[in-house]
Amino acid sequence: MTLTGHSLIAGQTVVGDGKTAFGFNPATNEQLDPAYSLITEDQLKLATAAAADAYPSFSTLDPETHAGFLEAIADNIEAIGEELIVRAGQETGLPAARLQGERARTTGQLRLFANVVRQGDFRGVRVDPAIPDRTPLPRADIRQRQIPLGPVAVFGASNFPLAFSTAGGDTASALAAGCPVVFKAHNAHPGTGELVGQAVAKAVKDFGLHPGVFSLIYGPGASIGQALVADPNIKAVGFTGSQAAGISLMRTAAARRVPIPVYAEMSSLNPVFVFEGALKGSAEDIDALAAQYVTAVTGSSGQLCTSPGLLFAPEGELGDKLAAAVGRAVSACSGQTMLTAGIAGSWNAGAEALGSADGVNLIGKGAAGATENAPAPTIFGTQVRDFVTNHVLHEEIFGAASLVIRYGSTDELLDAIKRLEGQLTASLQLTEEDYPTAAPLIPALEQKVGRIIVNGWPTGVEVGHAMVHGGPFPATSDSRTTSVGTLAINRFLRPVAYQNIPQELLPTPLQDTNPWHLNRRIDGVVEAAEAQKAGINA
Amino acid sequence: MTLTGHSLIAGQTVVGDGKTAFGFNPATNEQLDPAYSLITEDQLKLATAAAADAYPSFSTLDPETHAGFLEAIADNIEAIGEELIVRAGQETGLPAARLQGERARTTGQLRLFANVVRQGDFRGVRVDPAIPDRTPLPRADIRQRQIPLGPVAVFGASNFPLAFSTAGGDTASALAAGCPVVFKAHNAHPGTGELVGQAVAKAVKDFGLHPGVFSLIYGPGASIGQALVADPNIKAVGFTGSQAAGISLMRTAAARRVPIPVYAEMSSLNPVFVFEGALKGSAEDIDALAAQYVTAVTGSSGQLCTSPGLLFAPEGELGDKLAAAVGRAVSACSGQTMLTAGIAGSWNAGAEALGSADGVNLIGKGAAGATENAPAPTIFGTQVRDFVTNHVLHEEIFGAASLVIRYGSTDELLDAIKRLEGQLTASLQLTEEDYPTAAPLIPALEQKVGRIIVNGWPTGVEVGHAMVHGGPFPATSDSRTTSVGTLAINRFLRPVAYQNIPQELLPTPLQDTNPWHLNRRIDGVVEAAEAQKAGINA
Repeated sequence: MTLTGHSLIAGQTVVGDGKTAFGFNPATNEQLDPAYSLITEDQLKLATAAAADAYPSFSTLDPETHAGFLEAIADNIEAIGEELIVRAGQETGLPAARLQGERARTTGQLRLFANVVRQGDFRGVRVDPAIPDRTPLPRADIRQRQIPLGPVAVFGASNFPLAFSTAGGDTASALAAGCPVVFKAHNAHPGTGELVGQAVAKAVKDFGLHPGVFSLIYGPGASIGQALVADPNIKAVGFTGSQAAGISLMRTAAARRVPIPVYAEMSSLNPVFVFEGALKGSAEDIDALAAQYVTAVTGSSGQLCTSPGLLFAPEGELGDKLAAAVGRAVSACSGQTMLTAGIAGSWNAGAEALGSADGVNLIGKGAAGATENAPAPTIFGTQVRDFVTNHVLHEEIFGAASLVIRYGSTDELLDAIKRLEGQLTASLQLTEEDYPTAAPLIPALEQKVGRIIVNGWPTGVEVGHAMVHGGPFPATSDSRTTSVGTLAINRFLRPVAYQNIPQELLPTPLQDTNPWHLNRRIDGVVEAAEAQKAGINA
Repeated sequence: MTLTGHSLIAGQTVVGDGKTAFGFNPATNEQLDPAYSLITEDQLKLATAAAADAYPSFSTLDPETHAGFLEAIADNIEAIGEELIVRAGQETGLPAARLQGERARTTGQLRLFANVVRQGDFRGVRVDPAIPDRTPLPRADIRQRQIPLGPVAVFGASNFPLAFSTAGGDTASALAAGCPVVFKAHNAHPGTGELVGQAVAKAVKDFGLHPGVFSLIYGPGASIGQALVADPNIKAVGFTGSQAAGISLMRTAAARRVPIPVYAEMSSLNPVFVFEGALKGSAEDIDALAAQYVTAVTGSSGQLCTSPGLLFAPEGELGDKLAAAVGRAVSACSGQTMLTAGIAGSWNAGAEALGSADGVNLIGKGAAGATENAPAPTIFGTQVRDFVTNHVLHEEIFGAASLVIRYGSTDELLDAIKRLEGQLTASLQLTEEDYPTAAPLIPALEQKVGRIIVNGWPTGVEVGHAMVHGGPFPATSDSRTTSVGTLAINRFLRPVAYQNIPQELLPTPLQDTNPWHLNRRIDGVVEAAEAQKAGINA
């Protein structure tokens, strides 16, 4: 594909009237062509107005066309081929294998949402039939369904140029809900954004949809983002990025004349709790555990939302052995290129602040990488009493750094959990003998995280029906939601009730004949569509 | 029961350290005993801390005890007997029949939520079983459920002393979700609040629950409410009241260190659209339609969230006949006592402002009531072109006033709908010949309201599974929710995922043996508990 260097608004290439920006190769600090023209706030309105125009037809699309459209996006992304992996690699420094996996995840979740659209439970159909002879008053026929909120603004994330960007989880779930999307490309990977944007726009065109269903915009980072969230045509926001940026968007959304929901996934330390039983195996077992931890810390240069930033290890001989093994494992690592020079700079500042904090020692440090912006992975150590009193030790360092915290008792762990801010995940490493010790941690962790893992690592977020990639503030802006997995579609829906509406005026999903074969909740009880098809409730 | 005149915090009578306040009989402007002592912000913390303490046990209660508790509250409210109706009548001026109906609705919704708790679908159990041999990576067992958010602050509404107050919809749905409740009584009906509060507290005690599950507090209106919403132990807010108060609580909640959701139901004009077909019957038919409208406007002195404040009628002879019939019907009405002298004063000011607005004429006015604070029901008229340009005509007048708007075409109606703010409801009066004209209004109205009604009136909100009592801002603070009906429970829940957790450590609802017989979504497909019981997925 040819990169135009411009925004793609409602199917048209739009040359921005603002400044220009370039991608950079973080491995070399070299500028990448083409230049990207940045749009102005006036030009932004073309995209949001087109999205509003697209809503009536897109929000009422039949399920088969709707699902086919999502699958076509996946097909079109795959059809870009190697060019996408190469460009994304140049712009992010991420290795090809990681990007290939991320592409599979991206297309996989588009296809998963296509199935969600076909299956249709997200439409939330409820029917309370009329009871004309009820006393003292008759009951009217009342039906309910979920409708799409309206145009959604999605912000690309620097650390997932595919799976949390142009056609990533937020876009896929918003489109699946029936919401047009205005996508703000991340300026750190503009070419990757455009390649995928063209794939989405092609699907829009091929399916004959209103072109306003999808726009891809390039603009001056913070200001165009704020204008997008403040735009009256935008009805919800999906964001993955820093806490500062996320909170700023939340404030803008709350201050609108009509406030809108912001779904921001912002930061997480992803604590891991190691119990004694998990350390009673052989020296090789301890080495293996340490290696898994270091892999989770250093994978993708530590730039995953779920990278473990804290590991709680017991005091005493077993914990000493683990700390030593962790030190050896991380010392054998080399740095990998980080996403941008700015991110690498923040990592250096954060690691320095943590390393010089009171009560913090160095457990192990690897070698710097051969490329630019590839700092040495580093693991620090401290005691739980320092952790609970020093807020510096609670700050996320985005990148390959982590802190091993030694604890003496379950009470100390419970106290530490109480003082944690909201997190995406918590992980427990244990064996059967640890169950009684670990049991009280589960309800405590439920109050702090969106996902609890036993004998696994938080990285590698499965995209399925049961996944929660969310958690209490400040991990996310809204603990009632997830940004990964099929439940993510619920973020973009709202219920409407229809009372005594004649069949001729009822929206299709609510009609008696159930043309879309939806499962329906009749008087509070779910009635599967199979029964419908068999005419049981004809 | 004896009224103590004090707050009831975690099962204890707490004498407020602040000033005192009295209820007033709005029919006579007489003060009602006893004096109510108002708590301070320090005393408030007793209630929120107790609620936090109650959370671990209450949030994990077995369904049968949990449901029994809700039913016991309903039984205890009924056991108060006539005393409750008498006191509520004294404090609100509402007639006994209305209060008896409201009591039945209150106990009915508690029992409905008991069934929701027994049925258990709100727990949202999802299981994606492990796939150990999946390539390239195995899939871990991942399970999801919804957990209660934590202690909820509920604010009593002036206009529903029972159904939207102490044990009303917000309290019932929060308790059903497993959230302890701190209830801020409305100072306009303190005695009614206390009678019901004692009924709730008795159920807490009789079921051996942690006393912090419920507290009833009296405090200085706005300030204690703000402190309650700002309290770190509070995790969500339910509110029904004015737009100014609701928006102020939203701001406080958004400015917290950890923001929390506010579910505020604030204001609505509830437009009614009359089509020509509905006016082609006999003169008696038109009189009947006018009488129904006037009843909906004047019932409960117009102090219902869903009272119709606007009626769109066609220009021409048919509309003229309707307007004349409306004028006759309202002229025959007498004013009923409003809830408070302050509310009656606001009504007078609002009606005067509307009546003196450009292009507004008087269609009909009844007689003032014989009691205090019983202004004459009044219906005004205007043209759609004045309505779309003058914001004064869009302001809610809480009480028995309404505005008949004459329109010339469907385009004018669509334009008027576009300019409406968010509403709870919209109603259409039509016959089959009007279907083609009415059809384009349905999608337009979906964007503005939470419920659409055909050939009915918006008052009389059914409490069931399909009801939506909600709508876009400023009708409510959060269009994704309803405050009436079983879906209201979702406001107080959030999802948590459990990855590879051993059975011994899994929360009960997620265990393989499914001890609570819950319907579960397995790999995305709902599997009814009946199959469970038959051992199909043992």
